[in-house]
Amino acid sequence: MTDSPRSSASTSAFASPASSTPSAPELEIVDRWWRAANYLTVGQIYLLGNPLLTEPLTPEQIKPRLLGHWGTSPALSFIYAHLNRVIQHTDNEYLYICGPGHGGPAMVANTWLDGTYSERFPHLGQGVEGLAALFHQFSFPGGIPSHAAPETPGSINEGGELGYSLSHAYGAVLDNPRLIAACVVGDGEAETGPLATSWHANKLIDAKNDGAVLPILNLNGYKIANPTLLARIGKSELLSLFRGYGYEPVIVSGGFDGEDPMLVHARMARALDAAVARIEQIWSDARDAGHTDRPAWPMIILRTPKGWTGPKEVDGEPVENTWRAHQIPVDGVRENPEHLRILEDWMRSYRADELFDENAVPAADIRSLAPEGERRMSATPHANGGELRHPLVLPAVEPHAVPAPPNKGELVSATGTWGKWLAEVVRENPHTFRIFGPDETASNRLQAVYEVTDKVWAAEIKPTDQHLAHTGRVTEVLSEHLLHGMLEGYILTGRHGLINTYEAFVHIVDSMFNQHAKWLESAAEVEWREPISPFVYLLSSHVWRQDHNGFSHQDPGFLNLVVNKQAHLVRVYLPPDANTLLHVGAGVFGTTDRITVIVAGKQQQQSWLDIDAAREHVEHGMGVWPWAGNEAASSTGNHTGADAAPDVIFASAGDVPTLEAIAAAQLIRENVDGVRVRFVNVVDLMRLQDEKAHPHGMPDAEYDAIFPENVPVVFAFHGYPSLVHQLAYRRHNHDDMHVHGFAEKGTTTTPFDMVMLNEIDRYTLAMDAVKRLSEKGRDVPAALVDTWQAARVEARRYAYDKGEDHPDVTEWQFHPER
Amino acid sequence: MTDSPRSSASTSAFASPASSTPSAPELEIVDRWWRAANYLTVGQIYLLGNPLLTEPLTPEQIKPRLLGHWGTSPALSFIYAHLNRVIQHTDNEYLYICGPGHGGPAMVANTWLDGTYSERFPHLGQGVEGLAALFHQFSFPGGIPSHAAPETPGSINEGGELGYSLSHAYGAVLDNPRLIAACVVGDGEAETGPLATSWHANKLIDAKNDGAVLPILNLNGYKIANPTLLARIGKSELLSLFRGYGYEPVIVSGGFDGEDPMLVHARMARALDAAVARIEQIWSDARDAGHTDRPAWPMIILRTPKGWTGPKEVDGEPVENTWRAHQIPVDGVRENPEHLRILEDWMRSYRADELFDENAVPAADIRSLAPEGERRMSATPHANGGELRHPLVLPAVEPHAVPAPPNKGELVSATGTWGKWLAEVVRENPHTFRIFGPDETASNRLQAVYEVTDKVWAAEIKPTDQHLAHTGRVTEVLSEHLLHGMLEGYILTGRHGLINTYEAFVHIVDSMFNQHAKWLESAAEVEWREPISPFVYLLSSHVWRQDHNGFSHQDPGFLNLVVNKQAHLVRVYLPPDANTLLHVGAGVFGTTDRITVIVAGKQQQQSWLDIDAAREHVEHGMGVWPWAGNEAASSTGNHTGADAAPDVIFASAGDVPTLEAIAAAQLIRENVDGVRVRFVNVVDLMRLQDEKAHPHGMPDAEYDAIFPENVPVVFAFHGYPSLVHQLAYRRHNHDDMHVHGFAEKGTTTTPFDMVMLNEIDRYTLAMDAVKRLSEKGRDVPAALVDTWQAARVEARRYAYDKGEDHPDVTEWQFHPER
Repeated sequence: MTDSPRSSASTSAFASPASSTPSAPELEIVDRWWRAANYLTVGQIYLLGNPLLTEPLTPEQIKPRLLGHWGTSPALSFIYAHLNRVIQHTDNEYLYICGPGHGGPAMVANTWLDGTYSERFPHLGQGVEGLAALFHQFSFPGGIPSHAAPETPGSINEGGELGYSLSHAYGAVLDNPRLIAACVVGDGEAETGPLATSWHANKLIDAKNDGAVLPILNLNGYKIANPTLLARIGKSELLSLFRGYGYEPVIVSGGFDGEDPMLVHARMARALDAAVARIEQIWSDARDAGHTDRPAWPMIILRTPKGWTGPKEVDGEPVENTWRAHQIPVDGVRENPEHLRILEDWMRSYRADELFDENAVPAADIRSLAPEGERRMSATPHANGGELRHPLVLPAVEPHAVPAPPNKGELVSATGTWGKWLAEVVRENPHTFRIFGPDETASNRLQAVYEVTDKVWAAEIKPTDQHLAHTGRVTEVLSEHLLHGMLEGYILTGRHGLINTYEAFVHIVDSMFNQHAKWLESAAEVEWREPISPFVYLLSSHVWRQDHNGFSHQDPGFLNLVVNKQAHLVRVYLPPDANTLLHVGAGVFGTTDRITVIVAGKQQQQSWLDIDAAREHVEHGMGVWPWAGNEAASSTGNHTGADAAPDVIFASAGDVPTLEAIAAAQLIRENVDGVRVRFVNVVDLMRLQDEKAHPHGMPDAEYDAIFPENVPVVFAFHGYPSLVHQLAYRRHNHDDMHVHGFAEKGTTTTPFDMVMLNEIDRYTLAMDAVKRLSEKGRDVPAALVDTWQAARVEARRYAYDKGEDHPDVTEWQFHPER
Repeated sequence: MTDSPRSSASTSAFASPASSTPSAPELEIVDRWWRAANYLTVGQIYLLGNPLLTEPLTPEQIKPRLLGHWGTSPALSFIYAHLNRVIQHTDNEYLYICGPGHGGPAMVANTWLDGTYSERFPHLGQGVEGLAALFHQFSFPGGIPSHAAPETPGSINEGGELGYSLSHAYGAVLDNPRLIAACVVGDGEAETGPLATSWHANKLIDAKNDGAVLPILNLNGYKIANPTLLARIGKSELLSLFRGYGYEPVIVSGGFDGEDPMLVHARMARALDAAVARIEQIWSDARDAGHTDRPAWPMIILRTPKGWTGPKEVDGEPVENTWRAHQIPVDGVRENPEHLRILEDWMRSYRADELFDENAVPAADIRSLAPEGERRMSATPHANGGELRHPLVLPAVEPHAVPAPPNKGELVSATGTWGKWLAEVVRENPHTFRIFGPDETASNRLQAVYEVTDKVWAAEIKPTDQHLAHTGRVTEVLSEHLLHGMLEGYILTGRHGLINTYEAFVHIVDSMFNQHAKWLESAAEVEWREPISPFVYLLSSHVWRQDHNGFSHQDPGFLNLVVNKQAHLVRVYLPPDANTLLHVGAGVFGTTDRITVIVAGKQQQQSWLDIDAAREHVEHGMGVWPWAGNEAASSTGNHTGADAAPDVIFASAGDVPTLEAIAAAQLIRENVDGVRVRFVNVVDLMRLQDEKAHPHGMPDAEYDAIFPENVPVVFAFHGYPSLVHQLAYRRHNHDDMHVHGFAEKGTTTTPFDMVMLNEIDRYTLAMDAVKRLSEKGRDVPAALVDTWQAARVEARRYAYDKGEDHPDVTEWQFHPER
């Protein structure tokens, strides 16, 4: 697809080269397309019947609830029509990103005109019946939403929450050297933070190997209830802003005060031709002439009236070119005959009889403006990335295995180990895998990837810089929003990737996670959407080892958000060591249509499982580690419960909690005679739910074998304790589950002081076990608790005095039971 | 404070007017301050002893863990010193906002030099002992973090998570006409989305009645591991960008390649004097000459080497002016004698003996650079807003009460009702209360406030615009980040406000919520921080009534995030109707140091409680509504449990769930003979927790009286059902609690179809009650379930056919039991 030849444009009316002046007949067709699209847009918003206005409109033909957004629609269709003309003239591939909110009816109108809509939804064919159904379904129960949603052919950008169109566009063009993503940005969306920084993504693409983004900022002047900032600053400020962002902006303005649209068409066509010519020149400079300096990319500022071609005035108030045109420009149409008349006059102003035949089939010249097959923006496989997607080549993890168990003394970084495997993924998949991170990829210990690639950088590079290159496959910029959006765009167009970030700061993109989840939830119900790669988060520099950065860097709450989404798509893994991370990390890239969160530490830490045991443990997702407990020989299997119930269970999820829980189990094993201790680790958090709640949920019988009823469980959890209760509250043993986790106590201190502060340290866990054993009638020496309390006091005193952790905890050695 | 007269600067060495050329002696003192601050910064990062280097440095005097960020510090101190000089020359008030991450040691150094630090923390006085303790505490267990945190005098901006400095600054200057917030923005932070859009806040302040923000963009060129975007674009692009943002940028560049700092001091002093003169001119134009056009505000781009004055080279690698200067420019100092020598040379380069006497007291001329008393940026009450805060004048809610209960037929908008009360709050508090919202204040039905104020707008205003004015007290811009940051800045400087937004899109600022919560959690432990106003969210346009906007607009997950924070500061209210919203809304503004979330619908809906019953209900937070159940006369009290346990309980939290639960209770009451039905409403969500978990937690005995053990509860909840389980899992009746809520099923449909889709509709609730009653051995006619199933089928069929809800549910009438 990336090098698809130009289709036979010579058979159409659009044979002139792009650089020539657009011909009048051509623009006439563009205008007719535009009128048709506008008609279809109004029809969707208002009509339940009489779709071609073959008879006078009656109130019953009007939808009872008028929902939809007219204001942004005419400009979206104007741009769509013009891009169709451009596609006819050039060999490039084109993707249309519809940024403005609620632009759905326009996008549906255009994709119906070019035939794709009917191909995707055969009951909505070009014809009277299909047209009536098309109108009916819009913003109607059982129908489609008012945004360019997953249901909309050609879309990879939901127009519900604003701010991400430009980052999606930049992600889409990476490694697609012939793709031009025409990204329409609304002036409302342009006020958002994520969008405001996304303009800078032009410094993060490579003119040689990536495609181009052509931003088209549509200044229609208004949001829901206000003017927009960018529409109310002077022209010189406006141009200055975008020059500062690194673009060559051109303003196309028109349509105001009843200006003849044909004049605006001519302006827009010239501007678009020039922009595409400029992109092709930039490509040629980089690809043929070897230029390496950063080009100023073209962009267009299209200033048109909000609700252009709609009612000029309703009830004496101006509508077109005001915020009143934002949604329903004329309402109460069922009840108010004057409003019904305004609507009918408005619809008839498009002269549908000149645009459609009596069977509602668009006129031949209009249809001829649609490019052929996959060259249509609505049909490009780039917008249904699963069609282009090839599975990743996944290297073996075994060569990266670290010695275990238990690898006394020799500590390793889990993410550092995984980084070496990721480097091989990059090497084996040189055009389809990328890593994104906010200036933290090395900080998160993935720096091994710099042995095989660099960080992409198209701005100035100095001799002292390291690992910066135009061709880098790691994208770093201090905007989680921009990175998240680019990775979404990259995945939605059929490729693969990973985002890594400090755990606390992933909350910055909570809402982007939500919206991507909603995209996947909706896309799962759209038959023709092919599966795409998983969106994989590596959360490192996590809550327990941000002791040096302080409270602002300590927050494990992202997991609480993740588990709210539909169970079929979310996965959470908490690998306790390097080898389990290797298996988790390799496994997740083999899935599709998922959002997967991996929380893993970057600091030097103990390894517990050898690579085979790690594989088995990851496959089970949760299981008993007999060597960390002291149950009878009958319970030597790694993942089966013991025959006889233990007296107490330590459970853990997360690397630091696992260390503390293992140490706590050892304290009990070595100090309390005759107590049967079980140790359970959870690597796949969703195993805690039952099978009805989640596809990875563990059946009750299996769960009960691991956690028998009436056996107290002291659970050391990576995140907020309540999350475990939320997942496991229906389990039989739930009343005996005592969870320790992050209690929202943070500061700048030592690692062990952090776990003490939150009462998830080994001593507190052991003391809790003693308490639970006592509650069950066990006799435990009271002096033990005093000893451990004293150890805590001494650990804190030592840390506050010396500035580092007590040797008792840093030099602690694991003593396996066998 | 806002009009505090100029302090007697004539007693100091800084008597010349600001417009004159800075004198050499003056700049000499500025340089000496700067050297002292740099020395103190390095000392904090490295030293455990020998603070004045009175003897050669030994390894034991070095901290065992070297933590901290040198890179950004010298420029922060450079700016601080220069601002001190400026303060001596002008009558304005000044606030220093430290944007760059991890700038803590520099801010501590400067605030110790000017005396405030020792005033706030008497054990850290100016003297050898105080100095040693100051060095010891930094990034040390039991000490202080590496950011400008709540512990840092003069700070209202945590430097942990980046992106919010500029919005905090703009919020701070609102209604403070003599305040200049000097906002240092790091070039790392400048890459974030929130910061990128915050530059536009200059269109949202009033030159006449608000103060000024003076942004100082410090381009030191590097982040953790990369150059920054803004440091690697050409000068013309850089200037163009900020002109486009509406500023008059001036570049001050220097310190490279060993340039004499005195030359840079002269440049900076001239630039600052010019900037302040320009601000004063703008003020005079607006205040005296009546100018109303938007001015181009001054800003300074300060380009200095990262880690300026630090080690030039370590181990043969360049350090100053590279990313290697970001954190610890020379490490392993305890182990590596050469590194120890580099550190000692570096520290001695500041010639501390010229700056401090042998008792570590700063030299008199240095101390003379500090302004007096509250004119110090570290001591300004604006940065400890509780010192300035006056309680809001809160109007009575009774005049806005709507008739109830149950107000058959006459439906009201809860937020619309509250909006009228808010209008009075604005009127009664003309300089200390503001409303923020992303273009949605009217959409959320608070438009009554436009009867008393406008939306602030300093950009172009056209004749067709409505409610736009320079003096508006409603701030609307399509960036939740900018709004949240401005409200934080406004509150942290001692004022009051409210943010309103669509519920789903509050996730955009999840991380800002988190960080503000962490600020409050930390500030609560800082003795001299005075209480500030609550941060109040109104979440409207909520999940149940975004049926028309579709799935992207449907998300109630913010509450899950909120409950993770420390219990003493978070509150969640779900008022079920207009009168309860009035009481909730009036009550929350009387609190301090809280984050309060109110979820309330904007659509026309039933009222249930009259204003007195609403007061009582809100006071109790959760209680029985006898009139909605059918218990015996003995249970007529509104908030006490019945004497005899009911057979089934319907409970609700949230307006739409309450309507459905009341209707479900009625279905049971009217169709199942002899069943005792109780109805419980929860308005204060935290009542579900017990008193140990939350200050609003309800004692078990009281809870058990409302929800007796073994009585099934069918709970209709506004958000994700698991949240109720998370809060109530320790309650005695928990196994009998069956929660219905948002099941992550959304689409564009009718309101009732939304509740059906998520199985929280009256029929499903009633059927669940039947199931639970059957489980408890009750005999319930099976035909009922068939009837209700059929009603569901018919409701959906009707909605899909007609596009609106079935009359059975829209025209449903409440039949009270008595």
